[in-house]
Amino acid sequence: MYKIGRIQAMSDGLFAILITILVLDFRVPDYKAGYLFQSVVDQWPILLAYIISFFYVGTLWLFHHDFFVTIERTTPTLNILNLLVLFSITLINYPTALIAETLAQTNLADLRTAVVIYALTALLINATFEILYRYVYLHPQLKAKNSSAIRSSYYDPIISDGIYVVSIILSFFIVWVGAGFLLGGIVWHAMGYLRFSQKVIAGLPKSK
Amino acid sequence: MYKIGRIQAMSDGLFAILITILVLDFRVPDYKAGYLFQSVVDQWPILLAYIISFFYVGTLWLFHHDFFVTIERTTPTLNILNLLVLFSITLINYPTALIAETLAQTNLADLRTAVVIYALTALLINATFEILYRYVYLHPQLKAKNSSAIRSSYYDPIISDGIYVVSIILSFFIVWVGAGFLLGGIVWHAMGYLRFSQKVIAGLPKSK
Amino acid sequence: MYKIGRIQAMSDGLFAILITILVLDFRVPDYKAGYLFQSVVDQWPILLAYIISFFYVGTLWLFHHDFFVTIERTTPTLNILNLLVLFSITLINYPTALIAETLAQTNLADLRTAVVIYALTALLINATFEILYRYVYLHPQLKAKNSSAIRSSYYDPIISDGIYVVSIILSFFIVWVGAGFLLGGIVWHAMGYLRFSQKVIAGLPKSK
Amino acid sequence: MYKIGRIQAMSDGLFAILITILVLDFRVPDYKAGYLFQSVVDQWPILLAYIISFFYVGTLWLFHHDFFVTIERTTPTLNILNLLVLFSITLINYPTALIAETLAQTNLADLRTAVVIYALTALLINATFEILYRYVYLHPQLKAKNSSAIRSSYYDPIISDGIYVVSIILSFFIVWVGAGFLLGGIVWHAMGYLRFSQKVIAGLPKSK
Repeated sequence: MYKIGRIQAMSDGLFAILITILVLDFRVPDYKAGYLFQSVVDQWPILLAYIISFFYVGTLWLFHHDFFVTIERTTPTLNILNLLVLFSITLINYPTALIAETLAQTNLADLRTAVVIYALTALLINATFEILYRYVYLHPQLKAKNSSAIRSSYYDPIISDGIYVVSIILSFFIVWVGAGFLLGGIVWHAMGYLRFSQKVIAGLPKSK
Repeated sequence: MYKIGRIQAMSDGLFAILITILVLDFRVPDYKAGYLFQSVVDQWPILLAYIISFFYVGTLWLFHHDFFVTIERTTPTLNILNLLVLFSITLINYPTALIAETLAQTNLADLRTAVVIYALTALLINATFEILYRYVYLHPQLKAKNSSAIRSSYYDPIISDGIYVVSIILSFFIVWVGAGFLLGGIVWHAMGYLRFSQKVIAGLPKSK
Repeated sequence: MYKIGRIQAMSDGLFAILITILVLDFRVPDYKAGYLFQSVVDQWPILLAYIISFFYVGTLWLFHHDFFVTIERTTPTLNILNLLVLFSITLINYPTALIAETLAQTNLADLRTAVVIYALTALLINATFEILYRYVYLHPQLKAKNSSAIRSSYYDPIISDGIYVVSIILSFFIVWVGAGFLLGGIVWHAMGYLRFSQKVIAGLPKSK
Repeated sequence: MYKIGRIQAMSDGLFAILITILVLDFRVPDYKAGYLFQSVVDQWPILLAYIISFFYVGTLWLFHHDFFVTIERTTPTLNILNLLVLFSITLINYPTALIAETLAQTNLADLRTAVVIYALTALLINATFEILYRYVYLHPQLKAKNSSAIRSSYYDPIISDGIYVVSIILSFFIVWVGAGFLLGGIVWHAMGYLRFSQKVIAGLPKSK
């Protein structure tokens, strides 16, 4: 086992890039000379999808960061599990573009496709985090400083998963309601960060 | 609360990427064989917009860097406010492309759209920085080392905001004058960095 | 000679970016309104190629990271050799796109082209790593902490090379078998990381 | 004045991104089914331009890195000069694409355009480095540890500039000779790194 610092730095680099290249979907729209303003306004679905995914990835980043603050050492297996987490997060770029594209259209079947793929990606991300949490919890030699915060985080991903599953099911009936639940799941996830973070900090040795 | 270092590193990564992907708008132009030179020269608006935004984002980076030098600890709320600042800055890519595109055309209505959207983005960036400043100022437990520099920075964003608002208003009358004010606001902002930076340095403990 | 830390950080940055921009090939497909789902499903070759290359580059990253953990100092020559390694790895983006593209088509000649170019790139990557290993092995003043792990890694790249060469030859007979061997080589390479990593850790001074 | 470390880290991030996104110009070519191989082979100019620019930017990175190793403190002015250096380097992406594009065509006028723009960018990069060197040389309070290495580097950029100017002039007579000189200038520049680096190391305090 060696120090965790570099793995954390590597992950931070990946998060920084991922969250920034999301913006590459903002391209100057095709427009008729003199009517740029209208074309820009018509791009609101891209802005909305971008805002949601920026804060979703941002929250995942803060979760990842605070989680790794609690451990001191890494192992080859943890490195590979971390790679799995990062892989699942990089996928978010694609459903973000799907949401942006289908929000701008009026076809409900396509919007449903986008919502379901976004929710499935969120489920996959949660699953990889759960594997990571479990591995660290079961390996005390990693010197997790705050196992109670990690243990309490066991239930958060499961509730979060529940919301995403409901969002998938609902989207087959009324797609906008499914989309609303998906958004709710992401907001719930962000609030989960604040809860998790308070617990992590409470368990750290007092900083003077 | 934990150490501020990693949050700063994460932000630096995002700035590095954002400032670099601006250059992706420089693409080889369509050209007639034998006339590449003329087509390249016709791309001057892209170069101009790129120069302005590179130094604008560069200045924001230096501001952000110097600001975080003055604080020692972070909190979950500060992390989220920082994410808000970074979000607003990533948006600059889009109006940069709008300016590049519309400068090359002769349609004044479209240029006005680009100038107004650029100025609105600059206003949003200023607003998020002001929230950040205020939060740090009101939370002495973050151990801001130089609250006088931060306090003096209260007025800078407001003057800067004033210039951007004037630029938006003027662009509805004579768009080139509005564009000129926008550029002036960015230059004023860059000079503001030098003022701010001097104060930050003056307030740091003497380095031997 | 100066400390190795910054060269490692520079390399980590490049790996983080490379592994993330692989995802840019995931674009929203062209689709007929109402049939987005089918078009998304048809993109499975992009997902497959992405998964393979993500974990291939990820494994190379972990190899690189663990290797540099074992040395303390760098030289101008080592910096340039490292640049050569990084160069060869950045090339992987291109054959990944070729595989994604040709998997979706039914033309075997084109798939063979993609498999051969991917395997040649993997051979080149192996070759640059072998030069790096040899240089470090022959320069004890770099203070490699674990020369036995590095020495044992001498044979791994050669076996790995063998698999890639077989994959190239077989792809001229039955292209799918060649592609399977290529995939096998990458999996073997990933397992090689676990072996290598155990040896590196075994040779490091005990961390308490 | 504050520590140089973070400015160096910020610059490293930018270099890492710039050198990696160069590869985005490698796109799967348009090809007729069954003839992918030929289309790939026809992309040799992109590979060649990529190799040259990768090692050019890599050399600039190593120069930048070794230069900042010699100084301890930074100032707001140095930060802005550094931003100017980074700006000029990001421009290299564009002439790289021009060279790749025009090498593939047979039009000598367009190739000349590409060679001249590449050489002008190299001249600009050299100029910004010279300003940086001069500033550090004239400000001993930055605690440059090895002013003799920096002083000796005064002449290197000037010789390098000479080669680029000759390359521009020659390209108006026989464009391939101009291109050859440009390549020679870049190779000379890379060898200059080895010379510079030896001097920097010789002047550093002995590392045990």
